[in-house]
Amino acid sequence: MPYRAPVTDYQFLLRHVAGFDQIAETETFSEASDDVVDAILTEAGKMCEEVMSPLQRPGDLEPARLENGVVRTSPGYSDGWKAISEGGWIGMSGDPEYGGMGLPMTVTTAVNEMMSAACLSLQLAPLMSQGQIEAMEHHASDAIKELFLPKLMSGEWSGTMNLTEPQAGSDVGALSSKAVDNGDGSYAVTGQKIYISWGDNDFASNVCHLVLARLPDGVPGTKGISLFIVPKHLPDDNGEAGVANSLKVVSLEHKMGLHGSPTCVMQFDGAKGWLVGKEHGGMAAMFTMMNNARLGVGGQGVGVAEGAYQHALAYALERKQGKTPSGTIVDHADVRRMLMSMKADVFASRAILLNCAAAIDMQTATDDAEWAARAAFLTPIAKAFGTETGMRVAETGVQVHGGMGFIEETGAAQFYRDVRVTAIYEGTNGIQAMDLVARKMMDGGEAAAKLLDEIEDHAERARATVPELAGPVWEATETLREATEWLVAQGDLNDRFAGAVPYLQAFARVLGGHYHLVAALADPGGPREKLARFYINALLPEHTGLLAQAQNGSADVYGLTIDELVA
Amino acid sequence: MPYRAPVTDYQFLLRHVAGFDQIAETETFSEASDDVVDAILTEAGKMCEEVMSPLQRPGDLEPARLENGVVRTSPGYSDGWKAISEGGWIGMSGDPEYGGMGLPMTVTTAVNEMMSAACLSLQLAPLMSQGQIEAMEHHASDAIKELFLPKLMSGEWSGTMNLTEPQAGSDVGALSSKAVDNGDGSYAVTGQKIYISWGDNDFASNVCHLVLARLPDGVPGTKGISLFIVPKHLPDDNGEAGVANSLKVVSLEHKMGLHGSPTCVMQFDGAKGWLVGKEHGGMAAMFTMMNNARLGVGGQGVGVAEGAYQHALAYALERKQGKTPSGTIVDHADVRRMLMSMKADVFASRAILLNCAAAIDMQTATDDAEWAARAAFLTPIAKAFGTETGMRVAETGVQVHGGMGFIEETGAAQFYRDVRVTAIYEGTNGIQAMDLVARKMMDGGEAAAKLLDEIEDHAERARATVPELAGPVWEATETLREATEWLVAQGDLNDRFAGAVPYLQAFARVLGGHYHLVAALADPGGPREKLARFYINALLPEHTGLLAQAQNGSADVYGLTIDELVA
Repeated sequence: MPYRAPVTDYQFLLRHVAGFDQIAETETFSEASDDVVDAILTEAGKMCEEVMSPLQRPGDLEPARLENGVVRTSPGYSDGWKAISEGGWIGMSGDPEYGGMGLPMTVTTAVNEMMSAACLSLQLAPLMSQGQIEAMEHHASDAIKELFLPKLMSGEWSGTMNLTEPQAGSDVGALSSKAVDNGDGSYAVTGQKIYISWGDNDFASNVCHLVLARLPDGVPGTKGISLFIVPKHLPDDNGEAGVANSLKVVSLEHKMGLHGSPTCVMQFDGAKGWLVGKEHGGMAAMFTMMNNARLGVGGQGVGVAEGAYQHALAYALERKQGKTPSGTIVDHADVRRMLMSMKADVFASRAILLNCAAAIDMQTATDDAEWAARAAFLTPIAKAFGTETGMRVAETGVQVHGGMGFIEETGAAQFYRDVRVTAIYEGTNGIQAMDLVARKMMDGGEAAAKLLDEIEDHAERARATVPELAGPVWEATETLREATEWLVAQGDLNDRFAGAVPYLQAFARVLGGHYHLVAALADPGGPREKLARFYINALLPEHTGLLAQAQNGSADVYGLTIDELVA
Repeated sequence: MPYRAPVTDYQFLLRHVAGFDQIAETETFSEASDDVVDAILTEAGKMCEEVMSPLQRPGDLEPARLENGVVRTSPGYSDGWKAISEGGWIGMSGDPEYGGMGLPMTVTTAVNEMMSAACLSLQLAPLMSQGQIEAMEHHASDAIKELFLPKLMSGEWSGTMNLTEPQAGSDVGALSSKAVDNGDGSYAVTGQKIYISWGDNDFASNVCHLVLARLPDGVPGTKGISLFIVPKHLPDDNGEAGVANSLKVVSLEHKMGLHGSPTCVMQFDGAKGWLVGKEHGGMAAMFTMMNNARLGVGGQGVGVAEGAYQHALAYALERKQGKTPSGTIVDHADVRRMLMSMKADVFASRAILLNCAAAIDMQTATDDAEWAARAAFLTPIAKAFGTETGMRVAETGVQVHGGMGFIEETGAAQFYRDVRVTAIYEGTNGIQAMDLVARKMMDGGEAAAKLLDEIEDHAERARATVPELAGPVWEATETLREATEWLVAQGDLNDRFAGAVPYLQAFARVLGGHYHLVAALADPGGPREKLARFYINALLPEHTGLLAQAQNGSADVYGLTIDELVA
């Protein structure tokens, strides 16, 4: 079932829902004209359809494997990486000084999403490089940038993120990897890291690891952590990959999905590396990388949702069953409900994603604190709702297939297995929700309130033309505002945390309603309005139950003792 | 992570929530005293813990395979089948005249659920036999019963259900398998069947297939279908497995999960079989088997949910992370929310399951039409909500594990993969929901109304002691009543079908609230009340959004044309 890149959907969203005009009007992104963006989306879409989509199944059937300490990638992945590199899709938003295209994150986000839909396992490789590029651009010295960035952007080298250790998952501050100063400007890094996506490959001539480790005088916790760039091969005098560094892949994980992406246990034994950012300033640099990656992972969820939707729709259109006008199952009301739910949620999650990326671009272009706050607020929502949508749509895609959905040959099951990890890595969705109700509300709920004001203002204006759609969105926003104020008022953070996940889900539901309403106004009587109508009537009401749970406090979740939980 | 059979939970539920006393007071089930039931649950639980639970991982790692036309089962499965057989767990509810124990379905349901939790793949084998036994008891001739039932109940032989054909999935009436009268009381059956669970094995000396096929004078559609019992080996003069019949396993499916259970493509080439039920009366016999199997599959979902809950809780109790009182993640509010949601939904789905089984028992014992209507109404809810709970709890179980959840070694992923099929087979959950809003409302909503009356009456009485719990249950029931009346009033079935799935989900949510309230009253101030409090405050509110969707009609789901869905 070939993937078809939804280029026109991105064009509509950029123009009408994500406010791309505003971005293109800034000096920073003045070259991102409609023509340029259209050409880029078309070109990238073509690469996804023709090169990456055919690699989806082979990656599942012939997983990456470890041979004599070296990762051998799935059939065709090497060519796929080459196509991604040559298209310039790794360094799309990278600094042109180092070979990047300097395009807005909004465009990169759309392209990344398409690549995720076509072949999630392979797309994770450039996504890792992009996160590393962004962290280095912001925090590395000029010498390090000059050495690494051009090769990372061109795809000659690849990048990874090395955060997690066996005893330090969500609690990054508990890590025990060490670094000592070699006295020559370099450091010796020692420790074991787990869950390292694309920790090695056989298509880039060097693999560069960004590694969190603690210097001898680093205090316990996150404040004593530093970040190092540690390449597999040390650059020689010409800056090319030279002698091997003291690091290795110990093993690969046997995972439920994403088989084409090697998930490595990495061992660093006094490996030579260089500081990125300040001593003990690793978390700041890491957050740059993580925020980038969180948006990227949200896009993975949306991408898989799009892929699973197209796949299920194609099946429904050809599967004959029952007495219906077309003779196929697409005419059944319940199948149509499933397909509409999938499509409406793909739109909602994509709109949230692109608006988050747009806020990042406006922050970059204007250095305005309000845009920064908007980007920070939307990031956990984009990550969690994007990946939640990926899971839910892939699950529904399996269901549309009936019995065939459980059979691996159809590929419906692969979407379901692959996407599951996106709700876990780059900060579990629970971590995202806690970030939203704690850190992102340290402003007393100001960023949230501003967003809610905008939604209500828009709904007020929309009442003139589509009162039956604008009314429910306005009311949902009021309900969300009350819940937000309740959360902000809770002094005990556990009372926020106990309802954090349903709160984030409800926020996304309401935001999705808003963006659907925006789309409906741009397409009166057309398919965007009809999709919005379904979303607002059928899916938006979910927010009430979620917000009731969000405001329930922590007493009930701690209602049972451990012994009673076990009993 | 060893499974621990929740025997005390069943005892509490049977006594306080499923009205088991009433069943034990009937003449039919007069031998099912508390002592007998306790002994059975304890014994079965022990077998599940000690014999079946250790077979869960091996079945996944070493799937059943086809060798020279014969299925070789996973390591240890043969011993597992022997233990199930010798315990008498196949024929628990079977007629004592043929070697069964004659126990209520309520007890069998509890035992089946435990077996599902311990090892879903293997448990599917006795479940298939049970469905066959029930269909034969109700529809087969005495000669056929005498020949087959004792061996099926003892586990010497096993049973399967052969309904689906490539072009006839949910639309059973489209099947094309043929049967012709051999003139000697037997028939020759020819056709291909797919998705045949446990279509063959290497532990029973015969495999008996119940096959739907059409006689030459059978009309098109379901009314022209007949049911045949077609054994792998023809019984010899002594009734033992004799010469091979003309049937074979063509291939096994490569599935996302449930690897220990061979899913066969079966070919019948003029295979000898005998009629079960009347000519062209196959669907009536099939419905007996399917209703039994639907309850059984609902129990599979609940069982996996219980297994996944125990598994995740054990992980949360040992996984050190962050600064919490115990040092483990179980103290985090979001983890506690996940665990409480899992436990509360296991309770709700189990309560629905056991009340459905209890209604079947009361129907059997009293032949009362109201009990029959209650059983018929609850069956699709028990099936769909049980399996939905299985999926949701297994998904949450993966999330509790964080990164480890995506790694196969932990086993969390296996629950997630295995349980996925339960929402599909034995009638997809969409089919269940359509059954609920169409066939089960052909009485004008009477069966639904009676159930809602009971819930409201109970909530009214409960207001005296726990008004803060009784109030929300009463109000939710009123909302559900309005939605039910709206559905019944729709003349166009598509207006019901478009909201059927959310309606069923909402009905289950409210029913779950009722049973939690019943439990709370039986355990004032205790853990049952505290769990009910969480469910009613945090999970029950979900019904409002679902019921809004349930009453939205079909216009929106058909809002987009096919071309617009594709665009």
